[in-house]
Amino acid sequence: MVEVLKGNAVAAHIKDNMRKDIEELKKSNKTPTLAILRLGNNPGDVSYERSIIKNCEAIGIKSEVYEKDENIGTDEVVNALKELNDDNSISGILVFRPLPKHIDEEKIRSTISPEKDVDCMHPLNLENIFEGNMGGFAPCTPKAAMKILEYYNVPLEGKNVVVINRSMVVGKPLVMMLLEKNATVTICHSRTKNLYEITSKADVVITALGKAKYFDEKYFNENSVVIDVGVSLDSEGKLSGDADYDKVSHIVKMITPVPGGVGSVTTSILLSQVVEACKKL
Amino acid sequence: MVEVLKGNAVAAHIKDNMRKDIEELKKSNKTPTLAILRLGNNPGDVSYERSIIKNCEAIGIKSEVYEKDENIGTDEVVNALKELNDDNSISGILVFRPLPKHIDEEKIRSTISPEKDVDCMHPLNLENIFEGNMGGFAPCTPKAAMKILEYYNVPLEGKNVVVINRSMVVGKPLVMMLLEKNATVTICHSRTKNLYEITSKADVVITALGKAKYFDEKYFNENSVVIDVGVSLDSEGKLSGDADYDKVSHIVKMITPVPGGVGSVTTSILLSQVVEACKKL
Repeated sequence: MVEVLKGNAVAAHIKDNMRKDIEELKKSNKTPTLAILRLGNNPGDVSYERSIIKNCEAIGIKSEVYEKDENIGTDEVVNALKELNDDNSISGILVFRPLPKHIDEEKIRSTISPEKDVDCMHPLNLENIFEGNMGGFAPCTPKAAMKILEYYNVPLEGKNVVVINRSMVVGKPLVMMLLEKNATVTICHSRTKNLYEITSKADVVITALGKAKYFDEKYFNENSVVIDVGVSLDSEGKLSGDADYDKVSHIVKMITPVPGGVGSVTTSILLSQVVEACKKL
Repeated sequence: MVEVLKGNAVAAHIKDNMRKDIEELKKSNKTPTLAILRLGNNPGDVSYERSIIKNCEAIGIKSEVYEKDENIGTDEVVNALKELNDDNSISGILVFRPLPKHIDEEKIRSTISPEKDVDCMHPLNLENIFEGNMGGFAPCTPKAAMKILEYYNVPLEGKNVVVINRSMVVGKPLVMMLLEKNATVTICHSRTKNLYEITSKADVVITALGKAKYFDEKYFNENSVVIDVGVSLDSEGKLSGDADYDKVSHIVKMITPVPGGVGSVTTSILLSQVVEACKKL
């Protein structure tokens, strides 16, 4: 019988811990506060923003949105960020990405204060992840995947884990986190040959391919643990993970649903990093 | 018939390219200059230093040794580094590591000018490697391994490559370099189980385990390419790689000897980075 690794339970657990921290902070008159810097009105950004604000309110984190015209220049974004860096009432800063193409993203990334960088975009915070120092801020999606594995007691030490993604927001940080847990990690991507030969022998497969229902039964075995980070629309316009859930879920050991899996944990990770930032302020 | 991947030919090729660059630089009165900062008299450091100086002289790079007492404090090392950062006659700086235990290595790493950091210890240069930006300075040993693969035309795209090492000076940067070549990469280490099952199916195995003659025939197949970064003493006190060369070399396709393999390329990489630093000065 498959075990469905629901994200809600993990998010609730993270939020429980956060609540205690927020209460403690309020005793010393500190309110964790998230500043959101958004350029333009991309519907995806606006919808994600709304969800973040709702989650912040529910738990007692203050959120402030700084909306800017999408046509402003890099210097103006840099100045806005510097103001937020210097503002002692702000604990953490989230900059929506991707930024408009005319913006020098490298400059933005190195401007944000590493101490307020709750989405882990600053090079020094990313380098910490590369080094295996997991005590600071981490990219939210890979950290959410790791929290799910931890919550459901999936052993990683000495296990063969396959990561299908090599980006800086998911795959590469995830590999570093898995190495810290002493997993043997294989990184696959679009140029990998005979992917099913690799995934079908793995203990854990974490995929962030973004191709709806790409993986069928042949990619897994009865002991597979599948963490599905992919979210895209299938041929019927329905949200789907990379795994073909109906085909796969009755043969594997554990699987995250989409929606309701990794995606429902990422916002909690973001908020928990705002609380951590506030603690250190 | 095994192809022995000798490092000398690769080093000679790198030096040929360097010579042209050095001639060009001298036309505009620039001399690539390496500053070596050494604390104490560790015999390994001194011997490596001698070899670097000899190689520098042979090719027309100036080298300057800054020897300090091993008991000086972090602040004194920081000050020495700052002087070298500010000295326009110095193109690149090499700090011998590991540093004495009382020295705050993090502070040293972030003090060296990223533009003179020819051994790639500064967090920002390492983060570039993590991002897959290979145009800057890179750690010398993994870059040497990559140069050997390139020189001997070993295909990497879509190939299964196993890296046995997860350190910041070898394994992790190597993984990033291999991903840039579109290899599918598996990272193994001391906690990996059934290592031979993984290595025996791989196209390329790069090992930096540091255990003399650890790998016998069962770890490889007739198409294996073995890049042996390990250097340690065997039971008879002879320098040996991680692979048991006598047992392995007649069954694999290609193998680097030890000594005479990766180790004989690393100094050339270091020097080529001094020349690159000088070009950009």
